[in-house]
Amino acid sequence: MTLATAPHRLTEVTAADLPALARGAAVLGTGGGGDPYVGRLLAEEALRSRGPVALVAPADLPTGAVVVPVAMMGAPTVMVEKTPSTELVGHAVTALAEHLGIVPTHIACIEAGGVNSTFPVVAAAQLGLPLVDGDGMGRAFPELQMVLATLDGIAATPMSIADEKGNTGVLHTIDNRWAEAMARSLTITMGCSAIISNYVMSGAQATGALVHGTLSLCVAIGRAVEEARATHGDAVGAVADAVGGIVLYTGKVVDVVRRTTTGFARGEAVVAGSGRDGGRLVLHFQNEHLLAVRDGRPVVTTPDLIIVLDSDTGEPVTTEALRFGHRVSVVAAPADERWHSPGGIELVGPRYFGYDTDPVRVPRHA
Amino acid sequence: MTLATAPHRLTEVTAADLPALARGAAVLGTGGGGDPYVGRLLAEEALRSRGPVALVAPADLPTGAVVVPVAMMGAPTVMVEKTPSTELVGHAVTALAEHLGIVPTHIACIEAGGVNSTFPVVAAAQLGLPLVDGDGMGRAFPELQMVLATLDGIAATPMSIADEKGNTGVLHTIDNRWAEAMARSLTITMGCSAIISNYVMSGAQATGALVHGTLSLCVAIGRAVEEARATHGDAVGAVADAVGGIVLYTGKVVDVVRRTTTGFARGEAVVAGSGRDGGRLVLHFQNEHLLAVRDGRPVVTTPDLIIVLDSDTGEPVTTEALRFGHRVSVVAAPADERWHSPGGIELVGPRYFGYDTDPVRVPRHA
Repeated sequence: MTLATAPHRLTEVTAADLPALARGAAVLGTGGGGDPYVGRLLAEEALRSRGPVALVAPADLPTGAVVVPVAMMGAPTVMVEKTPSTELVGHAVTALAEHLGIVPTHIACIEAGGVNSTFPVVAAAQLGLPLVDGDGMGRAFPELQMVLATLDGIAATPMSIADEKGNTGVLHTIDNRWAEAMARSLTITMGCSAIISNYVMSGAQATGALVHGTLSLCVAIGRAVEEARATHGDAVGAVADAVGGIVLYTGKVVDVVRRTTTGFARGEAVVAGSGRDGGRLVLHFQNEHLLAVRDGRPVVTTPDLIIVLDSDTGEPVTTEALRFGHRVSVVAAPADERWHSPGGIELVGPRYFGYDTDPVRVPRHA
Repeated sequence: MTLATAPHRLTEVTAADLPALARGAAVLGTGGGGDPYVGRLLAEEALRSRGPVALVAPADLPTGAVVVPVAMMGAPTVMVEKTPSTELVGHAVTALAEHLGIVPTHIACIEAGGVNSTFPVVAAAQLGLPLVDGDGMGRAFPELQMVLATLDGIAATPMSIADEKGNTGVLHTIDNRWAEAMARSLTITMGCSAIISNYVMSGAQATGALVHGTLSLCVAIGRAVEEARATHGDAVGAVADAVGGIVLYTGKVVDVVRRTTTGFARGEAVVAGSGRDGGRLVLHFQNEHLLAVRDGRPVVTTPDLIIVLDSDTGEPVTTEALRFGHRVSVVAAPADERWHSPGGIELVGPRYFGYDTDPVRVPRHA
């Protein structure tokens, strides 16, 4: 994320930060990463009973820190109906730590997203550990191997997986794509959503493999929306500025096709342009928005961020909440530069997802 | 298994025992449990390089013994094409032992079957441990929770699962049916076959929950076939006697329908009667033969054993080897009496498998 001005760096997450954090995380979640409301409710419960969670910048991690990320895996469409308990979120971390015989010193986020930026807050609060102010992607992606850590050669496994019924698993795989395959099949069996803990890293590894400042950025994005509403009213523009991106398109959703297959919420949404934006923009998603096609031509693709906002309020719209008649604005923002390396494009570029196009980067910020 | 005369009790398994053992195990495997040839080859390799494996009767297990069963999970149709290494078989046991921090003292068989009576021989040889002369079912069944241990309240998990690529998992589930569900989905992802280790038992538990003398019985069955061929020639009758059962039907396979779905080899085979056996016998299988229907009426059902043999040679025919024109004899034999308890019928009776019939027991031995 290239930002004009770095956001204010937070030193803790309090209950008062959660609405802004959840909103900002849903913005970076690019339509995926889960319902920010569900994640926020759980985090509020955890922070109220346990107090604020300390935030540590990746650059300030002790070399020997034991950083344990935690996340929700599965179709966010299902998570909306099947909320996990706060205990469950911590349980995945504990199961992994016990299996490995390690004592976690820090919790981290695998991705930025409504649920996956707040579940780690829950785990940190519940386990009394500090949280790293960063994440593994700088956005949300649909598969487990899609973290910068994979580019650094860090193994996803040993990893743990837990469901709300009390079933748990620990996996050791030969590579991170096998971790995705095995964890995905378990997630589906567990009812299409599960809590996972993986990519255990030393402090030195985490400093190198995480995107820095993600949680501070989320809160900054969320606050920018509030401030815009209270003043000039251009919440969409405020989001675009906060993420260093541009407002790509504005219009009305005229069609949404979705299907939950092999554990993903897949689909396409068609936006008919309004005002100066004529024609149509088609958004292709697999949990997250991955490809924006304007009048038949790709205009932004993964790994860059395609962010759909409510045109009036600037609230991020998750792919599962997209529906006919919704007036939306599409913001495009640059991904972390490491995603644009050859290895990054191989891992998360449009061809990996089956789209027959080269990557198209966000047009330069005006 | 009610036997007229108990088979000679073996004290070790040598390479010379393997042909008889594999054949007898395939008989008790009732069509499932994997290809006896594949299992035998692996066991021969292991015994040649490591020497004979000691056999311990379940009644002679020390109370504090740590008994670790090992088995192949998945569709035997696939195992034929994707033979695991001897190392892999031992690896599932080691993975589980390491996770649990235990030192296994004995290896055991989950079921009787071509692969699942010989893979434990491989594991025992490779790990230098004695093998229990027993198994968890007294036959083969298609699902993981279908062992007498489940009736005794013994947990299937913690369990391990390993594939030939090097991926492993350890599962903890809330009950044995969830262990089946989660291990099955991993098995499918791993390519429809995997090695598992589960139902870790103390010596006292194993004495109570295993069927006694299974491996000795397998060898006795296998030897009875050899002897019959060398003398009177009625190998089918010799098998029926060895398992305490009857020859139910003789005829020719005129139709086989099979499909590998959700990790099982399912199907039906139609046998047209010959000689005094008029009409048709339909065999319904899910890895194992579970239901024999004669002219529309169930004549033997699970949990009793439905054993298909080559009419000439008395060789057991696995469900994946059944084909048009094959002249077969169907032997029926009583299951371990515990399977006929209400809990046993709930776990493995015909209704569990979706067949709308009460259990039909093997007609009394004439």
